[in-house]
Amino acid sequence: MTNSSSERPGEFELIAELFAPLATHAGAFGLTDDAAVIAPPAGHDLVVTTDTIVEGVHFLADDPPETVAKKALRVNLSDLAAKGAAPIGYLLAISIPSRVGMDWLRDFASGLREDQQAFGISLLGGDTTSTPGPISIAVTAFGHLPVGSMLRRSAARSGDLVFVSGTIGDAGGGLACLKREGRSLDEAHRAFLIRRFRLPEPRTALGLALRGVASASLDVSDGLLADLAHVADVSGVRIVVEAAKLPLSPALRALKGESAPLFAATAGDDYEIAFTAPPGSRSHIAEIAHQCGLPVTEIGTVEPGAGVVLTDANGREIPVCRKGFTHF
Amino acid sequence: MTNSSSERPGEFELIAELFAPLATHAGAFGLTDDAAVIAPPAGHDLVVTTDTIVEGVHFLADDPPETVAKKALRVNLSDLAAKGAAPIGYLLAISIPSRVGMDWLRDFASGLREDQQAFGISLLGGDTTSTPGPISIAVTAFGHLPVGSMLRRSAARSGDLVFVSGTIGDAGGGLACLKREGRSLDEAHRAFLIRRFRLPEPRTALGLALRGVASASLDVSDGLLADLAHVADVSGVRIVVEAAKLPLSPALRALKGESAPLFAATAGDDYEIAFTAPPGSRSHIAEIAHQCGLPVTEIGTVEPGAGVVLTDANGREIPVCRKGFTHF
Repeated sequence: MTNSSSERPGEFELIAELFAPLATHAGAFGLTDDAAVIAPPAGHDLVVTTDTIVEGVHFLADDPPETVAKKALRVNLSDLAAKGAAPIGYLLAISIPSRVGMDWLRDFASGLREDQQAFGISLLGGDTTSTPGPISIAVTAFGHLPVGSMLRRSAARSGDLVFVSGTIGDAGGGLACLKREGRSLDEAHRAFLIRRFRLPEPRTALGLALRGVASASLDVSDGLLADLAHVADVSGVRIVVEAAKLPLSPALRALKGESAPLFAATAGDDYEIAFTAPPGSRSHIAEIAHQCGLPVTEIGTVEPGAGVVLTDANGREIPVCRKGFTHF
Repeated sequence: MTNSSSERPGEFELIAELFAPLATHAGAFGLTDDAAVIAPPAGHDLVVTTDTIVEGVHFLADDPPETVAKKALRVNLSDLAAKGAAPIGYLLAISIPSRVGMDWLRDFASGLREDQQAFGISLLGGDTTSTPGPISIAVTAFGHLPVGSMLRRSAARSGDLVFVSGTIGDAGGGLACLKREGRSLDEAHRAFLIRRFRLPEPRTALGLALRGVASASLDVSDGLLADLAHVADVSGVRIVVEAAKLPLSPALRALKGESAPLFAATAGDDYEIAFTAPPGSRSHIAEIAHQCGLPVTEIGTVEPGAGVVLTDANGREIPVCRKGFTHF
């Protein structure tokens, strides 16, 4: 934390000052009640997801509070996006050590406010508690979509192609920079990579457009290969990813050189959408990508079998020791 | 923790072994996806609430893992109950330090399973993460009720009576026992109080029966007076509680003697329902209490004005320094 000197009011004053103004949804009752009321539009399901970020694990103690707030929200909005759900709002459960002062919390709330406007969502409710440990932020995000239209992990079919949005590996590169790697890197590259670590970009418009187009879809959080392994597993297929096709940023190439593709395939924290679709939808997907103003790259194929492999240009498997990030 | 020697598998194996069997709701997809799908029955709203419990703050490091799991669930189910909502399921976001072993986690999952059966609910999804800090468990609970029927904090009216379920102060007494107070206390009393601290009893049947009967309602978590102060505040009324009318258990009386009523009024962690209702519903409420097999006690009145006061039998205000628990 960069501060702790500002005096902090009580729990209820904190909620009234910082968080109640964020509760713009009618069912949040201005945070004056114990619970929120929410109903999906007629013919729609609610989609719910929860992800926690912990200081020292998912963000660093000296990350700006605004970006910590945004990351906590966005990792959840990214899950909704990959499922094809339009975001509605979120619950915030934050555990705050006593060293964290009002300055930090005000900046944190500012970050939430900015992203609420950017994504058209509302705080719905939450919980603040003290902790003897690190700052911990659990967000539960709510979205909606037409009944039965959620993009699943389990519907990849042999013969499908594999796609990914944006560029991958950048967030991992940003974390490496924050851990003092790449000191000779061009400052603009460094800033780009660090921003990608701190500020994921939920691909909401893409996710909505992929409903009825993608067969399987998920967001890349643990690492591209690890996440595609989940798809392969629950879909009962084998996924082959060509290393040379991975979309990499100039900044990541500058940081990692020849090892950039392998690094990117396993780095995690990308929050891009990886999805599968039948070959017939290639041109439709190109059109969607164009409309979303976002590159979407074909990176591999779905085959009969099991597991996920990374191959070189000659179809030979590249050995990968660690397919992604796991917490344990 | 009472153990940490058992070896722990990876994150995904942990989820598959311990948590996937708890995801019985169709919309949870057996925890094989990034998000869950949920829709309230026709004509119903979803009610959502989140509460986090942190080791060393809301439970003690040597509390049994089964009761830690149940407490994490029940503090949330209690919020649903006080709002008149029937529980459906929950999301679980748990942060686990590396010292916690599989034995602890298996017992924790057992506690969840038992309470899922007891309350007819399903795990819907969640997140497991590592933490350098204490164990932290954030639960988001989902319930449903007919559109517009949520029991609010804001609808207490001057002339209403104030009621509370069960007995209050017991959990605070239990915590005092765990902190080595009351060593001369009868063992049955001690066990009763500690159980009340570790295992709140969500008053689900009572909450459902109070829909359309209570004017305002909430669960007692921060302390009776502090919680009623929220009702007074958002309803724009004054609440007067008579100390002599507070329902106290023989165990708490044995532990606290003459100071029991004042202790109970501010102790917190009770998870009983405090509510207001017009005098005309007195006999209806007695009937509901009888049907629920739960004492419901009239403890005060709602008046014009602001704030909450505790009075003696002669209507004189009893000074209270600290109306309840706040985290900061």
